[in-house]
Amino acid sequence: MSGDRPGEDDLVRLIRALVRRRAPGLLTGVGDDCAVLETRGGPSLLATTDLLVEDVHFRRRWAEPADIGAKAMAVNVSDIAAMGGTPRWALVGLGCPEGTGAEAIEAFYAGALEVADAHGVAIVGGDTSASPSGWLVCVTLLGEAARPVLRSTARPGDVVAVTGTLGRSAAGLAVLERETAPPGLDAALLDDVTGAHLRPRPRAAEGRWLAGAGGVTAMMDLSDGLATDLGRLLAESRAGARVDVERLPIAAATRAVAEALDADPVDWATGGGEDYELLVVCEPGAFARLRAGLADATGTPLTAVGEVVDGSGTRWLDGRGRAVAVAPGFEHFRG
Amino acid sequence: MSGDRPGEDDLVRLIRALVRRRAPGLLTGVGDDCAVLETRGGPSLLATTDLLVEDVHFRRRWAEPADIGAKAMAVNVSDIAAMGGTPRWALVGLGCPEGTGAEAIEAFYAGALEVADAHGVAIVGGDTSASPSGWLVCVTLLGEAARPVLRSTARPGDVVAVTGTLGRSAAGLAVLERETAPPGLDAALLDDVTGAHLRPRPRAAEGRWLAGAGGVTAMMDLSDGLATDLGRLLAESRAGARVDVERLPIAAATRAVAEALDADPVDWATGGGEDYELLVVCEPGAFARLRAGLADATGTPLTAVGEVVDGSGTRWLDGRGRAVAVAPGFEHFRG
Repeated sequence: MSGDRPGEDDLVRLIRALVRRRAPGLLTGVGDDCAVLETRGGPSLLATTDLLVEDVHFRRRWAEPADIGAKAMAVNVSDIAAMGGTPRWALVGLGCPEGTGAEAIEAFYAGALEVADAHGVAIVGGDTSASPSGWLVCVTLLGEAARPVLRSTARPGDVVAVTGTLGRSAAGLAVLERETAPPGLDAALLDDVTGAHLRPRPRAAEGRWLAGAGGVTAMMDLSDGLATDLGRLLAESRAGARVDVERLPIAAATRAVAEALDADPVDWATGGGEDYELLVVCEPGAFARLRAGLADATGTPLTAVGEVVDGSGTRWLDGRGRAVAVAPGFEHFRG
Repeated sequence: MSGDRPGEDDLVRLIRALVRRRAPGLLTGVGDDCAVLETRGGPSLLATTDLLVEDVHFRRRWAEPADIGAKAMAVNVSDIAAMGGTPRWALVGLGCPEGTGAEAIEAFYAGALEVADAHGVAIVGGDTSASPSGWLVCVTLLGEAARPVLRSTARPGDVVAVTGTLGRSAAGLAVLERETAPPGLDAALLDDVTGAHLRPRPRAAEGRWLAGAGGVTAMMDLSDGLATDLGRLLAESRAGARVDVERLPIAAATRAVAEALDADPVDWATGGGEDYELLVVCEPGAFARLRAGLADATGTPLTAVGEVVDGSGTRWLDGRGRAVAVAPGFEHFRG
């Protein structure tokens, strides 16, 4: 493709060629007024949408179009994962600045399709627009779930657990936002944390496995940090929680970056956001079985960090049960 | 509400209170990772998304937040109407500049809900973001249709028709973009055309009636002007068309504004865009029945303007069958 700015019909032709796939349940895709889809009728339909806006959610200095496309798809897959669902169909709204060439748009779709393909998602529609400032992306993802797991169903006595590790994405963002690489850290370690930020891997298989295993009472994905997101889950469930900050799973790479940058890795774990791990609440008697089963099925660790209690809000405790203050979550809207 | 800029959770609470409705098939709405919906299983699911971006699709100088919300919803309802479907559930992605207060966001939702309520649509989810420049809106609408009417199924010999009148929205935009009102036109007439641009009324009842009446072979909505949109329908159907420009239905108000501004109302009808009328292609023997039936059922006129022919592209003819040039459609993406 040339680098000329494509017109709307050229763009639809380009996108249509890029996203054309045979997909189960897709009757009519890009090119008509609407996508026409055939649901299975039995399971519930899930629908979620996420906006990604340049200089709010990413900077072009460190995010390539392929990264933007991949992340826009991944964060929506994460929302479907958090309900224990199967993602199926995506609609992609894309606004680009004047002068954006076809290559950049192709790269964006290549990134989005890489994640979509990995999760069995078909891109079935969308819209394009000019943008007076930067890139803006709005992906809507539809999925299905036999029995969706909600945020509102946690009960006092349940275990609070998380998949994977926390704070790695925040460590990556801290590295990306610097002008120079932090001294004394090797490239593989830096790639690990920046990759976690640029290309989050949504826990789709994990969410489905957990929802089907029995004993999970509530679930959500960690997009704005444990402090903010657990607060939301508790508010929906009208309950409180105690969390032991010393049990928060923090990767060695995250700790190494924190040390190099004189930052607190626990702040990144509670307040950093964008880990796209799952916050899993389960019956206390189910935890050991879920941890072992999830590791067997997916290789992903599940770590208990606290418990649901009567009341409201989260009490953060150190290993000796003393209250500690933690970094509040990440709020894009406040800039 | 105060004029302070709300945080993300405040905003979710506000939006949730605004959009809370009992809606058929809505199992879980705003406040979880995804909306959970129950489809009927039988009919096809329709999905469409549209971006509206400040200074590309509207200007804040003449579009209030309520207008933006209403139009963002209406243009999506129009896409569902164009398939002959019933709109059901919307997800609203909203980016606002720093300093946008709760009142403006409430007004935006009031506008969106006015249109949603009129069409039986529930707002079931969405996302919010800061925006470094202006307002940006991405509404995704889901609907259902027993037998969706596509763009790709027009056949040579079919009649090409349109609902309502063409060019009124372009007349309204021409008035809105001026610093002063055009001289010699009364306020009611100006309100008529500016209202057509700011608050388009999607042809939902008309689309459903036409899809169910039998004899309609293809349909789409007119968002970018007849020249562009008919070209798209013909390309999908691998056919051409002849259109008699003297048969294009143009309202008296549109003609009066064109005269006052020394503009060509036919250019507005073919190239102006944003009329959100339906482009209806039907069997020739069905046209008279469809016109009479649609007028009875909805009060909306259906006007034959040409016919589908073998070949490709559109030949525009005057009343004596001579070829004429018309204004090409409206392309937002080229700015």
